[in-house]
Amino acid sequence: MIFPMSRWEPDPKGRLQRAAMELFLERGYAGVTVADITQRAGLTKRSFFNHFADKREVLFADSEAFQRTLTDALAAVDPAADPLEAATAALTQAGRSLAGYGQVAAPRRDLIASSTELQERELVKMASLCRALQDGLRARGAMPAAARFAAEAAITVFNAAYDDWIDHPDADFAALMMRALDQLRTAVG
Amino acid sequence: MIFPMSRWEPDPKGRLQRAAMELFLERGYAGVTVADITQRAGLTKRSFFNHFADKREVLFADSEAFQRTLTDALAAVDPAADPLEAATAALTQAGRSLAGYGQVAAPRRDLIASSTELQERELVKMASLCRALQDGLRARGAMPAAARFAAEAAITVFNAAYDDWIDHPDADFAALMMRALDQLRTAVG
Repeated sequence: MIFPMSRWEPDPKGRLQRAAMELFLERGYAGVTVADITQRAGLTKRSFFNHFADKREVLFADSEAFQRTLTDALAAVDPAADPLEAATAALTQAGRSLAGYGQVAAPRRDLIASSTELQERELVKMASLCRALQDGLRARGAMPAAARFAAEAAITVFNAAYDDWIDHPDADFAALMMRALDQLRTAVG
Repeated sequence: MIFPMSRWEPDPKGRLQRAAMELFLERGYAGVTVADITQRAGLTKRSFFNHFADKREVLFADSEAFQRTLTDALAAVDPAADPLEAATAALTQAGRSLAGYGQVAAPRRDLIASSTELQERELVKMASLCRALQDGLRARGAMPAAARFAAEAAITVFNAAYDDWIDHPDADFAALMMRALDQLRTAVG
């Protein structure tokens, strides 16, 4: 799934994210403390908690930005598009903004898979994304049930396309979305 | 969503579940400790942790039984059914087993909505259910992508039907599943 780190920049937040990722890959998620991360980054605990609510959030810090990108993209989709078209178009556009994160995405996915705590946090972020999509579709005039099912279906498509993209980072994200949408349509018949 | 308590019986597990639910409704989820629950139930902490891994699990204690009911139901579906038909048939049958829980389901849903911790746990349980469904569809011969999309779609349908059922506990669950499936089909076009 999504929400990779910011590109590594000399800002404190980016340094903390990079240090955390390095340490998680070296020692596993459970084997790293916030103190380890701040020491590696050469920053204080106070600085850490200025940027992240807890140790888990360091892996999901860009989720709010992603959600904003998504809702902005949705608002800009042709008003004539039906809810599922609009939701998948917005997710395709938002997903393309992740193109720079190819190298982080695979180890990040493995890390999340290694920890129930991280899986929980990821599921909560995806649920929030789905609700935002649903609200955006309602704002475009979709009826409640149509918005709900289109948002859920589009998130299913996005997660499949994102998984594919991690395994094939050179593939065109839009093509992976199209393929996943076709697979969903076939399944739902 | 799902996984309501066992019917209230004089067994320790049932007493703990009933005591917990009473206290959660009186004081809110965060305002209740495991010690409060065991005191109300007239049991020990050791007894609590024999039955539940943590305070959250008391609201999800029947999820394993539900998952077994689901996978058994799936294995018994006509082999000629396609993956989505099979998954929705199994969820319809498993969902009917929840018919006795009507009065607990609504306050339980409100409780879960009141707590991020509980939402996380519920999302993890639903993800586990979805994986079990996917594995069951694979065992029936579905290809990986077909199993994935059918399982995700069926869980979307089930969650919508279950929400409807909480609001209309006298409705026929199978009819709510059919309606939700139609709505998904309309959304996916």
